[in-house]
Amino acid sequence: MSKFYINKLAIVGLGLMGGSLARALKAQGSVGEVVATGRRAASLEKGLALGVIDAWTLDMKEAVANADVVVIATPTLIAEKVLAELAPLMTPSMIVTDVASVKGNMQRAAERVFGEVPANFVMGHPIAGSEQSGVEAATVDLFLDHRVILTPLSTTAEPAIALIQAMWEACGAEVVCMDVAEHDAVLAATSHLPHVLAYTLVDALAQNGSAADIFRFAAGGFRDFTRIASSDPTMWHDIALANKEAILQGIDDFSAHLDKVRAAIASGDGDTLYATFDRAKRARDEHFLGQYLSRQKKSPSS
Amino acid sequence: MSKFYINKLAIVGLGLMGGSLARALKAQGSVGEVVATGRRAASLEKGLALGVIDAWTLDMKEAVANADVVVIATPTLIAEKVLAELAPLMTPSMIVTDVASVKGNMQRAAERVFGEVPANFVMGHPIAGSEQSGVEAATVDLFLDHRVILTPLSTTAEPAIALIQAMWEACGAEVVCMDVAEHDAVLAATSHLPHVLAYTLVDALAQNGSAADIFRFAAGGFRDFTRIASSDPTMWHDIALANKEAILQGIDDFSAHLDKVRAAIASGDGDTLYATFDRAKRARDEHFLGQYLSRQKKSPSS
Repeated sequence: MSKFYINKLAIVGLGLMGGSLARALKAQGSVGEVVATGRRAASLEKGLALGVIDAWTLDMKEAVANADVVVIATPTLIAEKVLAELAPLMTPSMIVTDVASVKGNMQRAAERVFGEVPANFVMGHPIAGSEQSGVEAATVDLFLDHRVILTPLSTTAEPAIALIQAMWEACGAEVVCMDVAEHDAVLAATSHLPHVLAYTLVDALAQNGSAADIFRFAAGGFRDFTRIASSDPTMWHDIALANKEAILQGIDDFSAHLDKVRAAIASGDGDTLYATFDRAKRARDEHFLGQYLSRQKKSPSS
Repeated sequence: MSKFYINKLAIVGLGLMGGSLARALKAQGSVGEVVATGRRAASLEKGLALGVIDAWTLDMKEAVANADVVVIATPTLIAEKVLAELAPLMTPSMIVTDVASVKGNMQRAAERVFGEVPANFVMGHPIAGSEQSGVEAATVDLFLDHRVILTPLSTTAEPAIALIQAMWEACGAEVVCMDVAEHDAVLAATSHLPHVLAYTLVDALAQNGSAADIFRFAAGGFRDFTRIASSDPTMWHDIALANKEAILQGIDDFSAHLDKVRAAIASGDGDTLYATFDRAKRARDEHFLGQYLSRQKKSPSS
């Protein structure tokens, strides 16, 4: 990685993701200047005050001028507008990437703006985050030991892919390449659907007449189960709409399965219930045992 | 609490709950002898080897002879059989309690066995646990700073309630009394329903053709969301059947809410989605902010 260096990094939309990227690259000495732009001067000014960025401007043209790398880190549905603003400012030596959670939507947006996805636009998605948001939540190690999925097309330039890969690896992430549709299906299952379910459950309970008691007696299991329902509503509103088809499919698969479990409870079919719960436990333990054990060491009584 | 002391504690069903109770009471010097009984000699022998109990026997009569307190800590659906075995062995000076997660079922079982719930049977439910199970997972602090709900009836003896309350307070728990039906409704919402949903989601995903990829790219949010799906299938099979009506009601409320969210995604109704997600975030943050912040300090980048 020693040859990897970004002279000027421009971040469009300075929040948890863009801020954490800036912090990590600065800590590694992998970046010269970090300039951020966006719609809200307050966030940008906060980023400057926290030392996350070196400068900010509300002017996109100024922000990206002479940038080696431009990272689009706005909410998903705003990214298309950003691409349109960026289009006339892009140069052949400028590499553009993004951090949006849905990639099919981003590909379609780029196709609408550019006709075809530019060779120096490398679509990406760091699988990291927090139920906190905003530049003030940015940390130097948000991406450390996390995966970053890149979804380059056959027309994406190899050197551009290599640079974006090196950028994330400098943050301590493991980079994996994946097909756009596969990315969106996998993320719908493991991230988008669980968020929808958690939001739905908490909102349903909050509207229950006994909501105060319900939350009062909620234990650690409920707290963990609903942690993702504390995530940024704007971001998840965007994701739910951007990855609509895959999420609807996920909801339908889940609902069909829940109907079967409901029928087993209603009819007292203990064998089906036990088999379902046991399969789920085995699947989860098989896939998470390593991570699970390391968490247990930290909180043995949780 | 200095006057509180149990000369002989009998535990029927030695697992995580009974074992942790024994460890906590021993650590506090609040108990003389702890004798356990159950169906599996191996678990009982393990408890003895680990120093959790002082003695064990497969003979219920021997186990409860001269016990001040008998704790029924078997899986929920076995408790009725235990009550039936215990009935001829109970003496007026013996106080019986249980730790089952469903109380209406336990009340009906006691009524079937005894005609009416005995005055010295104090139904209880510690809101503590872990996705681990078995006596080997028992810890001295499982109940520390957790709530224990007692659901005494109007016919339950006050001194019996006071002693069981003192027993749990000696373990560091906060004791709350609640109506049986209210307990079962609240626990269905905050614990039983989330477990059913988590098991259902993990099992649905495990049966997906892309299961390996799905689990491979699952991040921290998914791991937390599904942690409770690693819980003991036998225990949750029992709970799902024992609290059937309240859980079915919870599933139906949840499904109706999910249908609305699904419709909003399908029709691109961003306002409804944002309002739902935002209400959920506010409700959760309002109820959990204290606990949430203390967790965040431990793992800032999770």
